[in-house]
Amino acid sequence: MTTTGNDQHASGTNLDPWYDLYAERTAGLAASEVRALFAVASRPEVVSLAGGMPFVSALPTELIHGAFEKVMRDEGPTALQYGSGQGIPGLREHILEIMAIEGIRASVDDVVVTTGSQHALELVTKLFIDPGDVVLAEGPSYVTAMVVFKSFQAEVQHVMMDEFGLVPEALRERIAELKAAGKTIKFLYTIPSFSNPAGVTLTWERRLEILEICRSNDILVLEDNPYGLLYFDAPPPQAMRSVEEDGVIYLGTFSKTLAPGFRVGWALAPHAIREKLILANEAAVLSPSSFSQYMITEYLNTADWRGQINTFRGIYRERRDAMLAALAEYLPQLSWTVPNGGFYVWATLPDHLDSKAMLPRAVKELVAYTPGTAFYADGNGRNNMRLSFCYPTPEFIREGIRRLSVVINGELDLLNTFSQTAPLKTIPVTRAYDSPPSNLA
Amino acid sequence: MTTTGNDQHASGTNLDPWYDLYAERTAGLAASEVRALFAVASRPEVVSLAGGMPFVSALPTELIHGAFEKVMRDEGPTALQYGSGQGIPGLREHILEIMAIEGIRASVDDVVVTTGSQHALELVTKLFIDPGDVVLAEGPSYVTAMVVFKSFQAEVQHVMMDEFGLVPEALRERIAELKAAGKTIKFLYTIPSFSNPAGVTLTWERRLEILEICRSNDILVLEDNPYGLLYFDAPPPQAMRSVEEDGVIYLGTFSKTLAPGFRVGWALAPHAIREKLILANEAAVLSPSSFSQYMITEYLNTADWRGQINTFRGIYRERRDAMLAALAEYLPQLSWTVPNGGFYVWATLPDHLDSKAMLPRAVKELVAYTPGTAFYADGNGRNNMRLSFCYPTPEFIREGIRRLSVVINGELDLLNTFSQTAPLKTIPVTRAYDSPPSNLA
Repeated sequence: MTTTGNDQHASGTNLDPWYDLYAERTAGLAASEVRALFAVASRPEVVSLAGGMPFVSALPTELIHGAFEKVMRDEGPTALQYGSGQGIPGLREHILEIMAIEGIRASVDDVVVTTGSQHALELVTKLFIDPGDVVLAEGPSYVTAMVVFKSFQAEVQHVMMDEFGLVPEALRERIAELKAAGKTIKFLYTIPSFSNPAGVTLTWERRLEILEICRSNDILVLEDNPYGLLYFDAPPPQAMRSVEEDGVIYLGTFSKTLAPGFRVGWALAPHAIREKLILANEAAVLSPSSFSQYMITEYLNTADWRGQINTFRGIYRERRDAMLAALAEYLPQLSWTVPNGGFYVWATLPDHLDSKAMLPRAVKELVAYTPGTAFYADGNGRNNMRLSFCYPTPEFIREGIRRLSVVINGELDLLNTFSQTAPLKTIPVTRAYDSPPSNLA
Repeated sequence: MTTTGNDQHASGTNLDPWYDLYAERTAGLAASEVRALFAVASRPEVVSLAGGMPFVSALPTELIHGAFEKVMRDEGPTALQYGSGQGIPGLREHILEIMAIEGIRASVDDVVVTTGSQHALELVTKLFIDPGDVVLAEGPSYVTAMVVFKSFQAEVQHVMMDEFGLVPEALRERIAELKAAGKTIKFLYTIPSFSNPAGVTLTWERRLEILEICRSNDILVLEDNPYGLLYFDAPPPQAMRSVEEDGVIYLGTFSKTLAPGFRVGWALAPHAIREKLILANEAAVLSPSSFSQYMITEYLNTADWRGQINTFRGIYRERRDAMLAALAEYLPQLSWTVPNGGFYVWATLPDHLDSKAMLPRAVKELVAYTPGTAFYADGNGRNNMRLSFCYPTPEFIREGIRRLSVVINGELDLLNTFSQTAPLKTIPVTRAYDSPPSNLA
């Protein structure tokens, strides 16, 4: 029997003998644009401003050695064994300590350790999304969150953001529109601090207002906070979860403040949801890696982890500064956001330039970025790009932006030449509504 | 809006304010009977014959130390970083070597590393199962596989097995019945070697016959092989995947031959399916743990892993022997399977005894097992129990079986006393059809 979800592709040639057996949801599982980029950007001669890899080389290896010795001495076979679906209590205690920095008070019973916060996203989506349900997300939003939502056949609806984050009035309007259209809205997915990809931060007043809007509309808030502790100047406002316990599922991770190679993140969820999360976690992986969990627990027990986060903050601040200076020097014709933390700058190209079409030429000039379209479920973002400053050194960032300016200036020259003869019909203009305005003065 | 799947529970009192928001599939996500048991059985005074924990203490810690030193020296920051959604090539090469022991020839491109083989199960199910689709599985079958299938709203249909594994004629009949009823059968889930929980092994002739039945009915075979290398006497027949490349997804794991704490397993899948598996893996966890993957790669590079598997085989053989001897001595009124590998004995109680009802009394006598009902989706298995010999020492196994005999003899005394007055209406009789006969002479 052919499933309806696959019918749309059934006309083409297909060499997969199992084609008719896939679930409907599998039709929504496509390779992200970021994925193809990882292959390109891994060539050593390319300056990659595309990925989101933290600079783990700044982590002293003796800290990892110290944690390992302690795990093997004190935990022994327990670290090599299956664990519980919720995660080890000692690690969950530390997670409470970390979340307290951003104002969160919670019980250790409500923390569920997951295989990176990515897996918490997958599990929450599995628990809540029926086909056709709406997930609200910032426009632009985190690419692999949208991949997850679509893989469970959610409809992703973007809500406008500006330099102060998600716009409450736009959220209110979007909810009203969707409800009027008879849609079921399950949750709002948001990265309020140093968002990926826009690099902007939701103000305290807006956090309160958005919580109130969601509460009064019975919409869960899925607060994703990988970057909150990586601020450059002042800390961001406290977490949304710090004021609202029942309506927020909070996601955290060790991938950015320690290392992603362990794949350890967590969800903090209201009681009843947490119980279901544990069951879903057990079904998916039996238990998160005991070895990784003990490694991180002993790292937190023995290392100056707050000092290490300060080290990371200093490194990323310097790189952010290098990127902003290079943009101002080489690409004054662009506008861009000024992030006060995190990994990303969101840049807006001059009108009529298409970041996706331009990418092959950029790679030819040995620089890579992520086209803005990757961060929209609806095809928007063609004249935006995400520029990551997390991984390359300041010198490479500067060189990358210089190379990018060669590409962009070449495009603009070409555009000017042609515009004297005929208008370019093939380049669509982005609707301003869904793109965050630059917060550069 | 209330989803239909939750309606069945809607009449009871419910303190979860988000109750109406769950997806339909979440209604199928229940705690397994094994889960509750883990809590009980973890008390040190209880001899647990319930769990499936490998005896990782038999792994010399210097092997783990050696792997760690090499990871930190040779891989450095790569082991701490994100990896690819498919897994690191060096590990996938080793996986080919391991699978070759059971006759499998494959390309390194068709291996996908997962967070334990449990996660491969979850991902395959996500790719293939629409609500109402049928998964065929041995009766009895692996409990947490069935939890996964049900969590995606599959209908699990058991097929009879005997001491030679799944019965081909029963498979043919079940397929015909289901097709006649208009059902869509997506795959056959099977553990052909030293099955969990039955401990029996599918013969070579039956492997060929079952592959042919599935091929001619367009049913995928999901071959789960965690125990194949842990044989006690002769090796099991070669893997089903060794003769059929296009119709089999093969699952393997390091959890039983090394340690489950790393959470590393794999799937070997036909090309087109493998591509989708990688996408699903990326959506779920971005990449499996680099650190765990490098630890295992360096373990395989530096340690005598074949010798270590031989060590495990010797340990589990001794424990199997201890369990069989104790059963013969203390519980001759039971029948049981004689496993030639793996972790489990499947025992059948005298008529009218109910393993689930008896469990609290067993725990009071300080012994735990898993009731047979956990391994059936349809309520069967009440007079069966799974007895694990993987974790306790031979002395504790013997003591556990002795305690179990106290419980069972007490139950039989009670039954005999009452049967002289009135029949016991509350104890259902298991249908013989779905339970494997004992292969004890």
